[in-house]
Amino acid sequence: MPLSEFDLIADVFAPLATSRAALGLTDDVALLPLRKGHELVLTTDALIAGVDFFASDLPAAIARKALRVNLSDLAAKGAEPFGYLLTLALPKNITAAWLKAFARGLAADQREFGLALLGGDMSGMPGPLTISVTALGYVPQGEAILRRGAKAGDLVFVSGTVGDSGGGLEALRQKRRAAALIARYRIPQPRLGLGRKLRGLASAALDVSDGLLADLGHIADVSKVHIAVEAARVPLSPALCKAWGRGDDAVLRAATAGDDYEIAFTAPRAGRAKVLAAGLAAGTKVTEIGFVMHGRGVALLDAAGKPMRVDRAGWRHF
Amino acid sequence: MPLSEFDLIADVFAPLATSRAALGLTDDVALLPLRKGHELVLTTDALIAGVDFFASDLPAAIARKALRVNLSDLAAKGAEPFGYLLTLALPKNITAAWLKAFARGLAADQREFGLALLGGDMSGMPGPLTISVTALGYVPQGEAILRRGAKAGDLVFVSGTVGDSGGGLEALRQKRRAAALIARYRIPQPRLGLGRKLRGLASAALDVSDGLLADLGHIADVSKVHIAVEAARVPLSPALCKAWGRGDDAVLRAATAGDDYEIAFTAPRAGRAKVLAAGLAAGTKVTEIGFVMHGRGVALLDAAGKPMRVDRAGWRHF
Repeated sequence: MPLSEFDLIADVFAPLATSRAALGLTDDVALLPLRKGHELVLTTDALIAGVDFFASDLPAAIARKALRVNLSDLAAKGAEPFGYLLTLALPKNITAAWLKAFARGLAADQREFGLALLGGDMSGMPGPLTISVTALGYVPQGEAILRRGAKAGDLVFVSGTVGDSGGGLEALRQKRRAAALIARYRIPQPRLGLGRKLRGLASAALDVSDGLLADLGHIADVSKVHIAVEAARVPLSPALCKAWGRGDDAVLRAATAGDDYEIAFTAPRAGRAKVLAAGLAAGTKVTEIGFVMHGRGVALLDAAGKPMRVDRAGWRHF
Repeated sequence: MPLSEFDLIADVFAPLATSRAALGLTDDVALLPLRKGHELVLTTDALIAGVDFFASDLPAAIARKALRVNLSDLAAKGAEPFGYLLTLALPKNITAAWLKAFARGLAADQREFGLALLGGDMSGMPGPLTISVTALGYVPQGEAILRRGAKAGDLVFVSGTVGDSGGGLEALRQKRRAAALIARYRIPQPRLGLGRKLRGLASAALDVSDGLLADLGHIADVSKVHIAVEAARVPLSPALCKAWGRGDDAVLRAATAGDDYEIAFTAPRAGRAKVLAAGLAAGTKVTEIGFVMHGRGVALLDAAGKPMRVDRAGWRHF
């Protein structure tokens, strides 16, 4: 069945455009109402078949990952999602049925996270399927949690568990069964509830995409501090321990694997109890994993407090 | 020279992030101040090498085209550009020197149109160079010019000349010289000045990207009207007439060629003089080319007022 862009927009994508801002996908643009006392938070991330997902993954799972890696950025800033723009560059083998399944994945996540498709662009692609999402959210004026606020004396925290997605990717490549880990690779969980509760508590935050150490390194760079992570405190899931063991080597692999989409953040020591309570209230485990000092860079400390050798802090994009 | 994403961002792209909203490209997001009494206008368009431009085109020209096709959407809505997000999916043959030249093209257009880079994403691409831009602008509350406002009795107008870009593309493919036409294909001119002046005058507008007839067809669909274009009135440039002649056939080709990035719009007959004055004030020629009636669809009329046969109204994306 040949695809007509206009039919696809009307049949498959217009039902996702549930916000007035989308103008029913009948115009060239989205028109966003400004929310009093708020700032607009914008983020964009592209996913490419063969790089960020497997072309053979289920279309609904690909859709959800494309949306969720962007929602994860909003979560880490304390923002509330509003909507997204979607750009699809489609190789010839993508069928209307594939796109309908893809749209069902988007619809499910729109309901789960309360956002709407606002607009986008589709074109043919003489290369791999490429999905680019720009997500938009609102945050109360001045309350966005940036990377640049970490201070010497702060503690370091991370949500959930680290390394599962890396373990899942490895299992997929080695054609091993590891359902829990693979699910974490395929469908990340944006920590939106936790992020909102961290407004006013966290001094700096980001979502872990390049790898825990690499991403904390970004906070250290921008905040002009040193961040020390204690290997023994880094939370690994039982499933990952089964695959990689529990020693410092497993932690090192987990902390440099990337694609976790957990929130790594810093907070003043005095706020420790409130931070842990925020995790409880959001239903997301929060673990204290280290501390912030004067200096630069990031270190992973062994049980003796000695910095471990880290050859590669995280994913490199080239 | 191997590319480091972080060095590239700091050296090549951070200097383009001249708005506070970009946070110096040191964070995951851009934070947009809301402008009182305004709506935010959002649009996104991707360009793919081999589809929307030639991989051998100059990097600065590719950059400017990627930005301008998005600015053209803002122009047609009467919006004022504020900034943009940029996603680059880069094949291995793209060098740091190429990216620096690309950034110079962006910098030139940022100065020309008064906008700033707000953020983005870069990744490696096992396929053609793909550039996705999301552009943002502001428009006074309620004054955006949508596609849906055309009314029976309105007149139809277009800015500039039609078909030059199609003529340029043909010359490039046939390796013929046609500098003026090729320049129009390579570097479109977003009609931002005219667009702003059309607020309150135009009843519906869009930018011509798929082809004049196809795009007026979008207005007709959404506004639930019939649009008639008189072939003899469609403005062709001297350069295009030299290549394609001046007859109805040339007009038909020009009106279905696409990539013009002119503004096609409708306005009440009573506003005709003001519309022409707006064109003069903006320094952009505006030509009356037809009229709006009850009914549906779009027609191109010959000198006898008879609808011409149109096999293909414009560019199809698949």
